[in-house]
Amino acid sequence: MTAVSRIRGVLAPVVTPFRKDLTPDRDRLAAHCRWLASQNCGLALFGTNSEANSQSAAERKGLLEAVAGAGIDPSLMMPGTGCCALPDSVELTRHAVGAGCAGVLMLPPFYYKGVSDDGLFAYFSEVIQRVGDGRLRIYLYHIPPVAQVPISLGLIERLLKVYPGTVVGIKDSSGDWSNTAAILQAFPGFDVFAGSEAFLLANMRGGGVGCISATANINPAAIVHLWENWRADDADARQAALTATRTLVQAYPMIPALKAAIAQYAADPGWAAVRPPLVALTAEQQSTLRAELDAAGFAMPGLQR
Amino acid sequence: MTAVSRIRGVLAPVVTPFRKDLTPDRDRLAAHCRWLASQNCGLALFGTNSEANSQSAAERKGLLEAVAGAGIDPSLMMPGTGCCALPDSVELTRHAVGAGCAGVLMLPPFYYKGVSDDGLFAYFSEVIQRVGDGRLRIYLYHIPPVAQVPISLGLIERLLKVYPGTVVGIKDSSGDWSNTAAILQAFPGFDVFAGSEAFLLANMRGGGVGCISATANINPAAIVHLWENWRADDADARQAALTATRTLVQAYPMIPALKAAIAQYAADPGWAAVRPPLVALTAEQQSTLRAELDAAGFAMPGLQR
Repeated sequence: MTAVSRIRGVLAPVVTPFRKDLTPDRDRLAAHCRWLASQNCGLALFGTNSEANSQSAAERKGLLEAVAGAGIDPSLMMPGTGCCALPDSVELTRHAVGAGCAGVLMLPPFYYKGVSDDGLFAYFSEVIQRVGDGRLRIYLYHIPPVAQVPISLGLIERLLKVYPGTVVGIKDSSGDWSNTAAILQAFPGFDVFAGSEAFLLANMRGGGVGCISATANINPAAIVHLWENWRADDADARQAALTATRTLVQAYPMIPALKAAIAQYAADPGWAAVRPPLVALTAEQQSTLRAELDAAGFAMPGLQR
Repeated sequence: MTAVSRIRGVLAPVVTPFRKDLTPDRDRLAAHCRWLASQNCGLALFGTNSEANSQSAAERKGLLEAVAGAGIDPSLMMPGTGCCALPDSVELTRHAVGAGCAGVLMLPPFYYKGVSDDGLFAYFSEVIQRVGDGRLRIYLYHIPPVAQVPISLGLIERLLKVYPGTVVGIKDSSGDWSNTAAILQAFPGFDVFAGSEAFLLANMRGGGVGCISATANINPAAIVHLWENWRADDADARQAALTATRTLVQAYPMIPALKAAIAQYAADPGWAAVRPPLVALTAEQQSTLRAELDAAGFAMPGLQR
């Protein structure tokens, strides 16, 4: 184990900007990644909030190359590479490893429901063996409200036994703190990221390593501050403030709201576009969200178009 | 409307054979399609039972070309082309239309849950407009137990208003007859396929056009016979017999069981392979299934390795 070299901290599942014709906008994405990195925020590209599964494998590879090509350090990156189809997952994982990314965040195959841990173990095994690269670091992505296919503690245990240096952590987006606590207790040394900053302080106190959270796209500095200072006296107050901001945004559909916030604070309306089946906030919703965030004292310092 | 030229009858969501290295086996697939066609069974390639979402877009295109290249009539084919990512759906749909397929069976994008009908309408609209081909015939694929994203009656109504010659039918795999009945009643002239032969007779009596059913992979002749003779005196008895066979197979995981049955009756063990996250039946399960089917008088006449 070389735990000290592994990625930890606060990562944003980076939202993906689209042009009017719905093609991914590489320049806007690179600019947003640069801003996030300037706030000491890591880049979980191609997550749920990135609309990754609304993109083809070729689009995802092109975007990763564009971001890396823009000079952003791949050691900050944990791209999502888990697809329904084994060949797609292998292709994207191999590509991410080749690009020097710190790790990959891997959804289970999510079309079939009620699949067995035997089948999921076989799936992850095939990916690991086919990629066949000692640099590979897999973070499992547990998000049952969306994927509807969970990563059980039993599956983690089996994977850790066979692939201890490769399967190294998890993002728990179950929204169920008791599940995160159970993972922390069962697997010391396994890198647990909370799936929301609402659990960041609890996760750090329980031995976790950080969070990968939607709202890190717009509120990275404050979340990173708590991560860096979670033992400080004001940690509970800071956690409460983070949760309040999250709650405000969560009153809207999350992904359109994040993009709308960036569009508003960057004065760049094009940022608000989403790919179907998602629907962008209306102009009125965007204005209301902006007014609510302003009233709460929210800002996105340093954000540029 | 040119309803008489549209595909109807019994279609099999054709199971996809894999080699030992888990690559798709084009020759075995073409042979199975040829046998199904010889039984007057249509080919809903790349459905749920085909493990379509466990295949890359390139693999699916290669398989369709192999089957068409083997001389099988594309007017029998209704390949699945609905993916999570718009560009993938457009690519596969365009390819199927270019190959002369009778239509395409289209899942809604299924990663995000709780999406709105506005978002789904926008999704299907984008596919139709980007494909931009008057030959396109879309059959919507309603399978909420798996996709978890339903096709509502309201969405059908909106699509029929704007794309009446393009969105022409549905496969209802809800397992809820009241939903199928509601569609039949609400949209006369809309081609409704039951998602299971257990509802074939009820669907025909209600004005439907056929069924697209897993077990048509192994029991096509008997299902086609009922479709051709649904007004006959013995129709209820034949329906009961079909349902009994289905119930027997359904005691096992459906896709592995279908492949095991073909492996058994074709004396071709390689057919039993599935891609993760699915798990093949054990040798013991395969033998038991075979014995149960034999005891029920089941056979697959004309099936060859």
